[in-house]
Amino acid sequence: MTRSLYLCNVRLADGQQVSVSIVDGRIDALGADAAAPRDAQIEDGGGALLLPGFVEGHTHVDKSNWGRPWYRNEVGPLLTDRIGNEREWRRTSGHDAAAQSLALSRAFVAAGTTRLRTHVDIDTDARLRHLEGVLATRQTMRDTLDMQIVAFPQSGMLIRPGTVELLGEALAEGADVLGALDPALIDGDPVASLNATLALAQRYRKPIDIHLHEPGEIGAFTLKLLLDRVQASGMQGQVVVSHGFCLGALPERERDVLLDRIADLRVALLTSAPPSCTVPPLKLCREKGITMFGGNDGIRDTWTPYGVPDMLERAMLIGMRYDLRRDDDLTIAFDCVSDAAARGCGFADYGLRVGARADLVLVDAETVAHAVVTRPVRKLVVANGRIVARDGVLTPPRA
Amino acid sequence: MTRSLYLCNVRLADGQQVSVSIVDGRIDALGADAAAPRDAQIEDGGGALLLPGFVEGHTHVDKSNWGRPWYRNEVGPLLTDRIGNEREWRRTSGHDAAAQSLALSRAFVAAGTTRLRTHVDIDTDARLRHLEGVLATRQTMRDTLDMQIVAFPQSGMLIRPGTVELLGEALAEGADVLGALDPALIDGDPVASLNATLALAQRYRKPIDIHLHEPGEIGAFTLKLLLDRVQASGMQGQVVVSHGFCLGALPERERDVLLDRIADLRVALLTSAPPSCTVPPLKLCREKGITMFGGNDGIRDTWTPYGVPDMLERAMLIGMRYDLRRDDDLTIAFDCVSDAAARGCGFADYGLRVGARADLVLVDAETVAHAVVTRPVRKLVVANGRIVARDGVLTPPRA
Repeated sequence: MTRSLYLCNVRLADGQQVSVSIVDGRIDALGADAAAPRDAQIEDGGGALLLPGFVEGHTHVDKSNWGRPWYRNEVGPLLTDRIGNEREWRRTSGHDAAAQSLALSRAFVAAGTTRLRTHVDIDTDARLRHLEGVLATRQTMRDTLDMQIVAFPQSGMLIRPGTVELLGEALAEGADVLGALDPALIDGDPVASLNATLALAQRYRKPIDIHLHEPGEIGAFTLKLLLDRVQASGMQGQVVVSHGFCLGALPERERDVLLDRIADLRVALLTSAPPSCTVPPLKLCREKGITMFGGNDGIRDTWTPYGVPDMLERAMLIGMRYDLRRDDDLTIAFDCVSDAAARGCGFADYGLRVGARADLVLVDAETVAHAVVTRPVRKLVVANGRIVARDGVLTPPRA
Repeated sequence: MTRSLYLCNVRLADGQQVSVSIVDGRIDALGADAAAPRDAQIEDGGGALLLPGFVEGHTHVDKSNWGRPWYRNEVGPLLTDRIGNEREWRRTSGHDAAAQSLALSRAFVAAGTTRLRTHVDIDTDARLRHLEGVLATRQTMRDTLDMQIVAFPQSGMLIRPGTVELLGEALAEGADVLGALDPALIDGDPVASLNATLALAQRYRKPIDIHLHEPGEIGAFTLKLLLDRVQASGMQGQVVVSHGFCLGALPERERDVLLDRIADLRVALLTSAPPSCTVPPLKLCREKGITMFGGNDGIRDTWTPYGVPDMLERAMLIGMRYDLRRDDDLTIAFDCVSDAAARGCGFADYGLRVGARADLVLVDAETVAHAVVTRPVRKLVVANGRIVARDGVLTPPRA
């Protein structure tokens, strides 16, 4: 039997009243005249604002404490303090990557996220345990949440022998993307680290998403080494640089040389828009044709107490970080957690258009900017053509 | 008849289970053994975390669009664009300072704020109209919300002849504090502007709260001129510098000279912790003995679409801006919207202690840090010894 849904009486960002016809999980028609498919479930949107399902471009569902007792953070201030503390916590807390990733993923969907890229820790202590947990969550959520898994060497790669091999196993077992982390300041050897990352990605034919926290001039140095290798290896369009704090702290001339190469090599940039760090210049990146998108990074874990699985709140924080106040500017913040994020991660069939996967969100808001700053309860979430949440709460699974 | 309330089964930040005995609007006893006053209304807190009523240290209730239709922001990027646009909007929008300040003030109380300092526009267009509106709101809310009014020359003072006289009238008619704004970059004459401000404050015997957005070296120059005048006029302990962006952008040695003078002169600092501006160093200021506190600044007005009348959310944003992640660090963020703000504004009889005005908030949270990052619905708000809100909603006024 054909599965169909007809969402009528909803409003596009430009104010146009439309209906959406959905057949077999796809948008079949969208417009003022879209007719109801035969035998469709009919849903009246009550004039609410229609948005595409949100895209989380960078998070860590494997190690969130979402829904668990409060974690009292007493961690030291260094990156290495946080990494070491987390390894210890994983060993001693009864950490369960499957249960914890499922709890957070469900909360994401309830708040309108239908696509998500998550970085999953791979190291010589945890080995592939996190990956297995998140693969189980991906399987459980497969009809609802389109999840990309990054095999991420959180504890460093070259500095922990055996990690390269584990990353390879992870890619063979279902990870979609190869992660990497601070080749100079964590791995201690930027050339060897980047060479190993590029070799691994090419061997498994996977794209790369590198966490580059390295600041200022050292970050610029590492970034240039990376871009050289992207160019030499023909990996144009297959690399994301996450964080890229250095791009917010360089002299303009030096920064612009890097941004122009980033644009040429179709490298995408991810930001969580942290208010206490320098960040790449959002509007300038867009002007240069760079895909720059947004993500929460960790949510309520041993690294950070902050974060909620709500991409409208992340869009608001992006807006605040970049001082976007005008309504038209705030649509940029929303783009960072919708179209630009889908493009940056390479999620297919995305968007409010005929033929796309029917991932939709309804909210009571006058404009996109209004939705971003007020973060209203999600009236309705449709994923893959099915209603999966109402008023912020997941609907029971279909019989 | 004596009015009394007994709040039992609540928890202090250190985990101690206590009860609170409240008589005639004051905390009469607080501790594990506090007994119920005779004929008291008894309220079981259900083990919730007990916090003092929150303090909003800097907002603009007179011109918020809270609760009104969405304001589509199409304003230019300069400070003067925003000031000019707002003057025009006030003239053409049917702006009603009484109604708008009342709507926002009520939302503040529902979310646990019981003390509030608001800057009220005084200029040669609006004259005292905003003041009159906010005075009406203060009168309406007098049993619930302890409100300080700052007479604030939003359009500049010396550059708009007649403003000094209007500020004087405002202070005579009920404003508690004299405001000021960028003596160099808005008023164009830092010495004359500061001299006029100091003279006016002394004439009316009122404290000062100056908005100093001036960046870097010009901000440092103006700040030094101000400190000289605070010292010469004996206004130690009676001046707040709001924003003080320059203090986040100076070379350390120059900044520390200023901070030491600020500490000596008992000048307090206010920050809204904007993520797109430089900000004074919070921990260093506290180490030097400076009272530094927090506020929202404008909430959903023609300046900014952002902001909610929720001091826990502001504490969260302060925590994020200053990268406070540990539980003990997050109590600093909460201090900025509670004790430090009461001290900075000079609100009397504040805090969780016997003899203080009984302004209390209950939330379901394990620790103060947990309350700040999760911003839970306020289970109960007590203001001046009366229950004024439950579960985020104002209770009906007493018969």
